[in-house]
Amino acid sequence: MAEQERVSIIVFSGDLDKCLAAFIIGTGAAASGMNVDMFFTFWGLSVLRKKGVKVKGKSLIEKMFGIMLPKGADSLALSKMNMMGIGTNMMKGVMKKKKVASLPELIDIANQLGVNLYACEMSMNVMGLKREELIDSVKEVVGVATYLEHASKAQITLFI
Amino acid sequence: MAEQERVSIIVFSGDLDKCLAAFIIGTGAAASGMNVDMFFTFWGLSVLRKKGVKVKGKSLIEKMFGIMLPKGADSLALSKMNMMGIGTNMMKGVMKKKKVASLPELIDIANQLGVNLYACEMSMNVMGLKREELIDSVKEVVGVATYLEHASKAQITLFI
Amino acid sequence: MAEQERVSIIVFSGDLDKCLAAFIIGTGAAASGMNVDMFFTFWGLSVLRKKGVKVKGKSLIEKMFGIMLPKGADSLALSKMNMMGIGTNMMKGVMKKKKVASLPELIDIANQLGVNLYACEMSMNVMGLKREELIDSVKEVVGVATYLEHASKAQITLFI
Repeated sequence: MAEQERVSIIVFSGDLDKCLAAFIIGTGAAASGMNVDMFFTFWGLSVLRKKGVKVKGKSLIEKMFGIMLPKGADSLALSKMNMMGIGTNMMKGVMKKKKVASLPELIDIANQLGVNLYACEMSMNVMGLKREELIDSVKEVVGVATYLEHASKAQITLFI
Repeated sequence: MAEQERVSIIVFSGDLDKCLAAFIIGTGAAASGMNVDMFFTFWGLSVLRKKGVKVKGKSLIEKMFGIMLPKGADSLALSKMNMMGIGTNMMKGVMKKKKVASLPELIDIANQLGVNLYACEMSMNVMGLKREELIDSVKEVVGVATYLEHASKAQITLFI
Repeated sequence: MAEQERVSIIVFSGDLDKCLAAFIIGTGAAASGMNVDMFFTFWGLSVLRKKGVKVKGKSLIEKMFGIMLPKGADSLALSKMNMMGIGTNMMKGVMKKKKVASLPELIDIANQLGVNLYACEMSMNVMGLKREELIDSVKEVVGVATYLEHASKAQITLFI
């Protein structure tokens, strides 16, 4: 029997358009029966933020990161043509009208299909993000060694 | 006999510099006898636009996308140092002087070498782009399933 | 005996955050015993620039590239939240405080671990960069054919 095919995606970007691309590939692959690992690092961690969580004892700079980074999948902006939010809202509107899944919907689908969501330990440390600030469906907080172990078995490896 | 090696490139970006990189890798690989698939999605679709095509019956938002997106490979700008076009023109000038192929020339070479150009169905739908607005050498308009099928057989998979 | 696993990374970006990600993956992979090839092209060449080298006989445009491109790993800026250098310095400060290696330190570690650093010949030509302007640890100036040869043997291929 053939081994299960694997896809490994690093989500570095916190831009709405790139994150949409990452989840469309990830959910598409999972729907085709592939094993999918998505590793969120740097700006990509914004996608995994849970809304309205307050964590005590953060340093000033950690608080600043908290304020400046988008607060979850619903708050991301386009990498281009954002135009102070107008372009982003236009894109969201068109997608809804054309019945293309939104980013929060894609994350739900990813969970249902068993896509593995990993958060990067080092980036969380630098930005002062705690596990409880991330959505529950994050499987594990991991380091680069875990990424490499998974990715070296994957047929498709992407950095987005 | 060894199987033919394969390269799979997603061209997500519509920036001149990134598209140049994508086509330099793609044509280089094809020249070395590899099978090359390039999938154009989101901003990357700009590269495939044909000039001067008018399609009737577009919605207001689809018309706006048509106006705001670059009109083909000749109209892209650098991701950095564009400086309202000055940097981009400077770069084009230097490339010409140093006899490096331009983006339109690279697309021609890609065609001659049999590089497969695919356009992403979902992005075309969102942006309201029709097949007749894309250059003739686009082989097929495809979905993520086709991308995954090709990419899972490739030795080199990139997201640009 | 299993063959040594290989990682192939194109560093196209000259942004501090993306270059950090590239070197964290590269050094992590080398530390795990993998063979790592990093190919620096376009803006990514900035990372390899040596400070304070003057080369005579450059054209005006080549001089302009020299002035406008960041002068080495220490001079890169974040892709987001740079805020005229404030965000970048803040990030560097946090990383130092949290004992995360800086980019120049990561390059040193990469050298010690035997990561292969390659510079793209065509980009150097376009930007008028000479070999003596790059740090000594660059192994070789190569073309796309060399990249493809290495990458086609790698389990993990990334474009950053």
